[in-house]
Amino acid sequence: DQLNFVPRADATARARKGTRRIGVLAPFITYPSFVQRLRGVATLADTSYELVIYNVESASRRDGYLASLPVTRRLDGLIVMALPFGDEAAQRLRANDLETVLIECAHPFFSSVEIDDEAGGELVARYLLSQGHRRFGFVGDDEVPDYAIRTSDRRLAGYQRALRAAGITLAPEYVMKGRHGREQARLHGHQLLELAEPPTAIFAHSDNQAMGVLKALRERGLSAPRDLAVVGFDDIDVADYLGLTTVRQPLEESGRIAVELLLARLADRTRPTQRVTLPLTLVQRETA
Amino acid sequence: DQLNFVPRADATARARKGTRRIGVLAPFITYPSFVQRLRGVATLADTSYELVIYNVESASRRDGYLASLPVTRRLDGLIVMALPFGDEAAQRLRANDLETVLIECAHPFFSSVEIDDEAGGELVARYLLSQGHRRFGFVGDDEVPDYAIRTSDRRLAGYQRALRAAGITLAPEYVMKGRHGREQARLHGHQLLELAEPPTAIFAHSDNQAMGVLKALRERGLSAPRDLAVVGFDDIDVADYLGLTTVRQPLEESGRIAVELLLARLADRTRPTQRVTLPLTLVQRETA
Repeated sequence: DQLNFVPRADATARARKGTRRIGVLAPFITYPSFVQRLRGVATLADTSYELVIYNVESASRRDGYLASLPVTRRLDGLIVMALPFGDEAAQRLRANDLETVLIECAHPFFSSVEIDDEAGGELVARYLLSQGHRRFGFVGDDEVPDYAIRTSDRRLAGYQRALRAAGITLAPEYVMKGRHGREQARLHGHQLLELAEPPTAIFAHSDNQAMGVLKALRERGLSAPRDLAVVGFDDIDVADYLGLTTVRQPLEESGRIAVELLLARLADRTRPTQRVTLPLTLVQRETA
Repeated sequence: DQLNFVPRADATARARKGTRRIGVLAPFITYPSFVQRLRGVATLADTSYELVIYNVESASRRDGYLASLPVTRRLDGLIVMALPFGDEAAQRLRANDLETVLIECAHPFFSSVEIDDEAGGELVARYLLSQGHRRFGFVGDDEVPDYAIRTSDRRLAGYQRALRAAGITLAPEYVMKGRHGREQARLHGHQLLELAEPPTAIFAHSDNQAMGVLKALRERGLSAPRDLAVVGFDDIDVADYLGLTTVRQPLEESGRIAVELLLARLADRTRPTQRVTLPLTLVQRETA
């Protein structure tokens, strides 16, 4: 591949050759919610753009892409999902005029589509408090891959804040953090249920993890909400069929809006960037 | 885009300019199992190839891609998932020397990765018969989009054949076919359970549809396997966490093997094409 470094002199010099290609840079394998976002992005099929997927599995791969993609002139635009990156990468994207939109992260240079994770945590706490719960647990992430976004800590912070406002402190043994995944969440579910005074309600930082907690419950011959209230986060496709009470974030819509923001800027570079925050809603089903 | 029609004269003329790009043509939105296949395909990230996704949502879009992709010279290779196509498209792919591998379909010109859907249906019937069941139901697809593969009929054929071998005929009212999806499967589940003599076991043509049947069961205050045995097909990620008894097909592996077949042929065009059939296994969990 030849690399064309184009000096950022004037608008004419900066204009990229149209490749009719939009790239998506995302931690592909780890997050089930990725797929639903990608469905929104796939509305690109209604345009003449092709969708190129860059699968990020490590910080070095992320940095490699962020270093090379802006200069390879293979893309008209880029959507970055759930990947934090620094000013250097942002500068490079801008200097090489690669139009970029961020999902689940934000940077002053670019348009972004986000949710308020702390508000989501508060929503869960207030809902569970309103149901009369007084003993709470949390199952979230600790060893997030070093290249991905730390939503777990933000959701926990909101959860704790709302609980504190009700006079409840979450003791450390009620806060489980580990490697993201259903299996780890299942083990954490067992740990919480083995406490001398087990929680009566658990907030799992994702639906994926809520499924692990529900499995632990089933393995102990218990069920939600009778023995334990379980609330997830995301409202992925299967949540409805699991009867999972959860915080709905507009996943597919986030992908669709990111595409819209990108195409609008590609059509008119004078449009201002936009920082979009999408609403969260608590969906009450069977498990809490 | 310029279109270069290259006559299929000799190997030199046929060699495509290396784009380092592999395309995946797939019915993207409809099938949850697609994602797991794509995970396997995403092992491409370990190579220097980029992954371009072409989302097929109609027969005309499929035909449009199959007409244009071979001639646009934007790809080195193509993986076609679960899309039937005719000899004309196959001829065009070959004439333009676009190296192609098929998943869940087959054509004499190309390597392919498949499963034996009929054998999968038989597997389910024999398992349920061994559990003592004598009254069976089926929930599958009818109005498959006209551009996708009809796996449902093949799985049903195997199911019926094995039942017939045991002296059991599936009466028409026990065979539900409709639009693919969990919601339709939920409605079909209710219909089967409302029969004067409801089945004691249901084979759902996909895990997705099995979830719909399980939801119907829950809505009637019933549960599997106590009131009804439910078996799915695919073994998608969540099947384990649903305790769903199902037929496992190697989804991620199918994507990985397709990539291997494609890269091997790109490296050496004299390699013979391969028709690969992957094994199916019945995974016994809680629902049957």
